[in-house]
Amino acid sequence: MAFTFQINNDVKFKHDEKLLAKAEGFRPEIKKERIHPARIVEVIEDPLKLNGVGVTESDKSIDKIEEYGLKRNDKMILDFGDHRVGTFKIHIDQTGSPMDAPLYMRIKFAELPAELAAESKDYEGWLSRSWIQEEFIHIDELPATLELPRRYSFRYVELKVLDTSPKWQAVFSDPMVVTETSADYSGFEPMRFEDPELQKIYDIGVKTLADCTQDVFEDGPKRDRRLWLGDLRLQALANYATFDQTDLVKRCLYLFAAMTTEEGKISANVFVKPENVPDDTFLFEYSLFFISTLYDLHQAHPDEELIRELYPIAKKQMNITLKMFDENGKLNPDENYPVFVDWSNNFNKDTAGQAEMIYVMKQFIELAKVVRDSEISMYEKKLELITDYAKNVLFHPEKNLFATAWDEYNIASQVWMVLAHVMSDEENKSIMQTTIQELFPVKNIATPYMYHHIVEALFEAGLDEEAVHLMKSYWGKMISLGADTYWEAFDPDQPEYSPYGSPIVNSYCHAWSCTPVYLLKKYVKNK
Amino acid sequence: MAFTFQINNDVKFKHDEKLLAKAEGFRPEIKKERIHPARIVEVIEDPLKLNGVGVTESDKSIDKIEEYGLKRNDKMILDFGDHRVGTFKIHIDQTGSPMDAPLYMRIKFAELPAELAAESKDYEGWLSRSWIQEEFIHIDELPATLELPRRYSFRYVELKVLDTSPKWQAVFSDPMVVTETSADYSGFEPMRFEDPELQKIYDIGVKTLADCTQDVFEDGPKRDRRLWLGDLRLQALANYATFDQTDLVKRCLYLFAAMTTEEGKISANVFVKPENVPDDTFLFEYSLFFISTLYDLHQAHPDEELIRELYPIAKKQMNITLKMFDENGKLNPDENYPVFVDWSNNFNKDTAGQAEMIYVMKQFIELAKVVRDSEISMYEKKLELITDYAKNVLFHPEKNLFATAWDEYNIASQVWMVLAHVMSDEENKSIMQTTIQELFPVKNIATPYMYHHIVEALFEAGLDEEAVHLMKSYWGKMISLGADTYWEAFDPDQPEYSPYGSPIVNSYCHAWSCTPVYLLKKYVKNK
Repeated sequence: MAFTFQINNDVKFKHDEKLLAKAEGFRPEIKKERIHPARIVEVIEDPLKLNGVGVTESDKSIDKIEEYGLKRNDKMILDFGDHRVGTFKIHIDQTGSPMDAPLYMRIKFAELPAELAAESKDYEGWLSRSWIQEEFIHIDELPATLELPRRYSFRYVELKVLDTSPKWQAVFSDPMVVTETSADYSGFEPMRFEDPELQKIYDIGVKTLADCTQDVFEDGPKRDRRLWLGDLRLQALANYATFDQTDLVKRCLYLFAAMTTEEGKISANVFVKPENVPDDTFLFEYSLFFISTLYDLHQAHPDEELIRELYPIAKKQMNITLKMFDENGKLNPDENYPVFVDWSNNFNKDTAGQAEMIYVMKQFIELAKVVRDSEISMYEKKLELITDYAKNVLFHPEKNLFATAWDEYNIASQVWMVLAHVMSDEENKSIMQTTIQELFPVKNIATPYMYHHIVEALFEAGLDEEAVHLMKSYWGKMISLGADTYWEAFDPDQPEYSPYGSPIVNSYCHAWSCTPVYLLKKYVKNK
Repeated sequence: MAFTFQINNDVKFKHDEKLLAKAEGFRPEIKKERIHPARIVEVIEDPLKLNGVGVTESDKSIDKIEEYGLKRNDKMILDFGDHRVGTFKIHIDQTGSPMDAPLYMRIKFAELPAELAAESKDYEGWLSRSWIQEEFIHIDELPATLELPRRYSFRYVELKVLDTSPKWQAVFSDPMVVTETSADYSGFEPMRFEDPELQKIYDIGVKTLADCTQDVFEDGPKRDRRLWLGDLRLQALANYATFDQTDLVKRCLYLFAAMTTEEGKISANVFVKPENVPDDTFLFEYSLFFISTLYDLHQAHPDEELIRELYPIAKKQMNITLKMFDENGKLNPDENYPVFVDWSNNFNKDTAGQAEMIYVMKQFIELAKVVRDSEISMYEKKLELITDYAKNVLFHPEKNLFATAWDEYNIASQVWMVLAHVMSDEENKSIMQTTIQELFPVKNIATPYMYHHIVEALFEAGLDEEAVHLMKSYWGKMISLGADTYWEAFDPDQPEYSPYGSPIVNSYCHAWSCTPVYLLKKYVKNK
């Protein structure tokens, strides 16, 4: 992966206080629950699990936790039984002689056992090491209840005593996480599948979504803990298929709408703590997906008033992006406003970007109809132009595939053209069959985000069996490697791959990977 | 040094609530003062300073501190101008793009530049690494005011940004220490010396004492931060010569008196936080020095009522220790109740211990007279027996020195026999002259505690010039190496020596080294 940080800190942003007040009005209640660990575990080699690291139940019993005295370099790993997002607290006392030195300890939070086997001191990646979920704590006086102020994302908590003194040991009791989520399980009825594999894939998708559903739809509760528009679009779809909390989607839309650049462009993500601030990162289709998210909301829960209110901002994105197309309907990419599609930069994204525009324009025109925009016909003509360019220039009938400017045939181009329904249903099916034949198996794609679109394109093309097969081989593989929630990054050909060089900064609960709950409901259950 | 931890956690202690209530009644007020750093400095090589490490003023100005953005691995060292004991706070903000990752930083507190050059990860010493004054901090949201809850002992604060993200930098402002001491400067008039070297030695002694004067007389505010009886005795003497806060001495005496073993033995040190607990460490003369401290208090500020109240506990120590002497008046040392004298275990301490007993017995008999103890004559006879053994067996006239059981002539034996005034003043002078001739220069002694007794013995023997010379060459050497306060350990022949293998766990403000303030007043100024 070749990730480039965008730094555009000279960009001026608007803050529409009226819209921000509405976002505030939809701020969800964070539900809290106390959870105690299920058991004490030890790290073991396990070739079947991610990075060859698993856990096994310890000789130490969680019911007798207060009987174990820990001295310099002793450690104990608590297993909270499932993925948890929340704050951690634990009571600490000492045994032996009086406490003649402070307690110094390290607390490590891990979503997966693989993280327990990695040491932060060895981390040399480009991503901030500040994401490593590890705290070094001094306690001068025991007994004490240690209540960490930060929120963590984890299943395992490793308590390591870095030092006491030769005269006494630290004793731990009553460890607890107070979980946090704004996902509302009260009215939620999970789907039931006869196929246990699909059931598992679905259940873990629900858990992933719930743990990312916080004050906003976060991308990942471990990292980056913020609202990205591309992720929001998928979270909203997954949300309608599960908890169906429309207010939170509205909150997120208002946040993006309220803080555009002075020219009206929506940034790729926003921060909400300690105050609302848009990031200075801009992605071609993330701005466009404001339109998609608004459209999808209206499909799930029609709300003309909201459409009317946010339509001008949606239209602004459309107009900004239309300027990137030439008189032939061809996208002229701008490296300062890159097409994302996937993390990989090893394939050309122009054609996929062209398709994304078509995908979004169709949704935009539906919104334009709702508000009876007088310019509809202009947009319809532009759509025709851009679509014609795709059909006539980018599509190569002899290959039965879409090409890129580099004369490259890649999966992303086909997938997005199919999702945009540029061709007929029959042609789409044929294109995806050719894709399977010529371009599969998927290689060098590490994002569930891209895999989602591939699977959805297969479903949209009527290749349900292939879609389910790919879903099982991708999301099912994460499960067999030990996932309690789905991961930010996963390349099944190289499971140990981390875009950051270490599992300790990977996010193993990442919302853009929760979409099987949406795909299964739309294409399998409700078929 | 061959330090052995005593672990006697089966020993049962009494808690005399009446005496503890009195100790509580004398709890001092902690005075607080806000201090801002004087400048920003950089670490430099400086062969004249301890471990060859010094500081020089940075190009960065403390007045413009908020103009410096710190990114991954950048650091900044604040110099608070003098040794400080207290809590630290600082305001932190960020500059650049929005904060897209937590701030991760390290804060290191150093009494001396030598500590800034050492890394905690390299520390492998036997003493608890929990004493290293270093915190690792994550901050999720900026701006924030970081207010560390712990008390530190330092002059320098190194702020190191471990990570931000490539998009933004951390910005610091308004660093501040809120100092803590119970030393009362309001009525204190420092002594003035014509000799600037003595003035400096005195002033730094006062600062050392003040920074150790807290809720109790602490041994060192960095480490171990607790009340040791051997240290208390010297702190009390230094206190009468300076701040003269009798209440705090009383508080400390009550604490020891209230928590003896069931047989009545006083432990070497006590803890007062979170509650009053005696340590399970016992040292021969530290128990005895309860008597000395009570005696010294009565000399400074006669208080018959207090003597009457605490005499039974003093007497208990005397009786326990008397059992260690045989019918000839010879001390039979007990390795479970060791004679301390000095950290070094490379010399025999039996004769010094015998002398310490004589020193204390004389004071005890004075106290016995105050309370008109009917057994006085018994103690006087014992004193005569023990003294006779010292004079007749341990003193070797042909050498004009006291020998130990190993037929070893060491400085400690002479020093304590002189302090105990076993021989006449004339003989004492002669013995100390022989000591200078035969046993000086002092070698392999690293405690200011032992140096104090050597200097005092020289003064007591009338060798004032030699005493002042030794004081200047020892305490003066610390000053020339950069001391703002006097150190726990210092061997002038090997200044870099640390009993723990690293300066970062050394205590560079340690009360048992503050005694020049007492020695200068008693033997130089008031002479």
